[in-house]
Amino acid sequence: MRDDTLPWPFRDTRITDLFGIRYPIIQAGMVWAAGAKLAAAVANAGGLGLIGSGSMKPDLLARHIRKAKSLTGSPFGVNIPLLRGDADELVQTVIDHGVRIVFTSAGSANRFTPYLKEHGVTVVHVVPSATLSKKVEAAGCDAVVAEGFEAGGHNGPDMITTIALVPQAADAVSIPVIAAGGIAHGRQVAAAFLLGAAGVQIGTRFAATVESSAHDNYKRAVVEADDRATVFHLRKIGPARMIRNRWTDRVAEAEARGASREELLELLGRKREMRGIFEGDLDEGQVEAGQGSGLICDVPPAADVLRGLVEQTNEAVRDAGVARRR
Amino acid sequence: MRDDTLPWPFRDTRITDLFGIRYPIIQAGMVWAAGAKLAAAVANAGGLGLIGSGSMKPDLLARHIRKAKSLTGSPFGVNIPLLRGDADELVQTVIDHGVRIVFTSAGSANRFTPYLKEHGVTVVHVVPSATLSKKVEAAGCDAVVAEGFEAGGHNGPDMITTIALVPQAADAVSIPVIAAGGIAHGRQVAAAFLLGAAGVQIGTRFAATVESSAHDNYKRAVVEADDRATVFHLRKIGPARMIRNRWTDRVAEAEARGASREELLELLGRKREMRGIFEGDLDEGQVEAGQGSGLICDVPPAADVLRGLVEQTNEAVRDAGVARRR
Repeated sequence: MRDDTLPWPFRDTRITDLFGIRYPIIQAGMVWAAGAKLAAAVANAGGLGLIGSGSMKPDLLARHIRKAKSLTGSPFGVNIPLLRGDADELVQTVIDHGVRIVFTSAGSANRFTPYLKEHGVTVVHVVPSATLSKKVEAAGCDAVVAEGFEAGGHNGPDMITTIALVPQAADAVSIPVIAAGGIAHGRQVAAAFLLGAAGVQIGTRFAATVESSAHDNYKRAVVEADDRATVFHLRKIGPARMIRNRWTDRVAEAEARGASREELLELLGRKREMRGIFEGDLDEGQVEAGQGSGLICDVPPAADVLRGLVEQTNEAVRDAGVARRR
Repeated sequence: MRDDTLPWPFRDTRITDLFGIRYPIIQAGMVWAAGAKLAAAVANAGGLGLIGSGSMKPDLLARHIRKAKSLTGSPFGVNIPLLRGDADELVQTVIDHGVRIVFTSAGSANRFTPYLKEHGVTVVHVVPSATLSKKVEAAGCDAVVAEGFEAGGHNGPDMITTIALVPQAADAVSIPVIAAGGIAHGRQVAAAFLLGAAGVQIGTRFAATVESSAHDNYKRAVVEADDRATVFHLRKIGPARMIRNRWTDRVAEAEARGASREELLELLGRKREMRGIFEGDLDEGQVEAGQGSGLICDVPPAADVLRGLVEQTNEAVRDAGVARRR
């Protein structure tokens, strides 16, 4: 699978070997953006595509899995956020439909890893701290995603950033560490490998592609975002990063005056992510995106993004005066 | 000055040439930790040492400048936080005492840059966003420090992290970008260069050295810190990162219930940084430190830190399979 003519940093084959893919670049399984079309496009281009089940009922997830299989013969996976009340049904769905790769997040790695492993699934869990990465290894996962504070969407309470987190996680565990959070350009991919990562997981950059299910307004908002565009809110009820808008300003105002959990849940309401990402309501929706948004200035096909990331990585290495290995 | 036998990333000579130093590694001018002894030790080891004037009256700063000159013949500089009421006196003090390098922070780059440049001073300004880095360039500064949210001590309100900030700042300006925030190990130095930096500014790692004026308790706290040890508070009155303790728990509780600026100023009280950093009160002081603290596990002489950073950088590059240039 692996392309032996690729220069560093794609020489580290732990992640490509683990998943049977060409590039150690993983497209995050984002709610309302990462369906079968996006995951299959990334898989066909040589990365690992993930279906984001966070916005799907089990039957819809099953349809996306079947569709992805019809669109690609390459490996793909499913992300399952464990805060979902029906997480066990989602887990059963991926097993029943023969998915071989599962990323779990927003919960304990102990919960489903043994069951998934019994069924031959490769399991990766997402954590926001080096401390928690040890629990992932102990739970028997095959790899861990160390996701920094700059990531879009749901996030950890400790606010540890990618450049601080990745080396500490790499020191803490023996399983491969996949860096995530704020990565939207190949310069950052190359940097992540130097920090000790064996792969990268990239969200927002893939949410702003042709195959993403996100609304065109959402994609335009990411393109227009600068480095200060995103905000981090809702620590009391579930921290998340999103593009600042009229609704987040109300949240900020409420948080500044010490609003209760109840009031924040009321302000959040229902289907806020769907409204922001899928329906494109840029004023009142939760427009989840990472701090890498400022580096994104187009909405190309996902395959072009993947190819671009690889080229940028090589270019960053060349520009820095780093010679090819071999 | 530069050592031509050094491997990448020390081939980028913009920062070494600008300051006339050997390694593009700058020791941050930290309050209560960075006096003449630390700045001179770093200068003698080939980095750029900065005296932190944030905790000094003009006459004490003058004494530190004279002492640094007696301890090293190599270039050193002074950091001046512009939020100080007597910033103009500090600026005059550095000019009167022939300091050739000044880093300004916590204010507008326009305020003193023209005056300092008239007096032949090399001026660098610290910013927390790519957007503000453009203003630094427009103000005529020679370089800009792009400091991420993971940095210890005072910080910007936008909470942009180093891995997201540095490439965006490098794209935004033509002057050299110095990366700061969370950097305590050579892996991160190498990563910073791939992100587009031409140098790094490192705080906490140098605060936990023999020559640092910080209290031994402070240094021990940094050594014992893990990746989740630091917290970010006081956004309403001046955001800062510090090691969590009894006092920060009270601040967190007050902030969660929406405490006013007045109440937070009351909770902060006076000389909280001195208490935490210089007097070593780990329960009630403001123990400023960055998220890189989890990577720090000893209190060596500053020269050993500098040498270690260079060795780690080279090792990271070697481990990643990156060949030497030439």
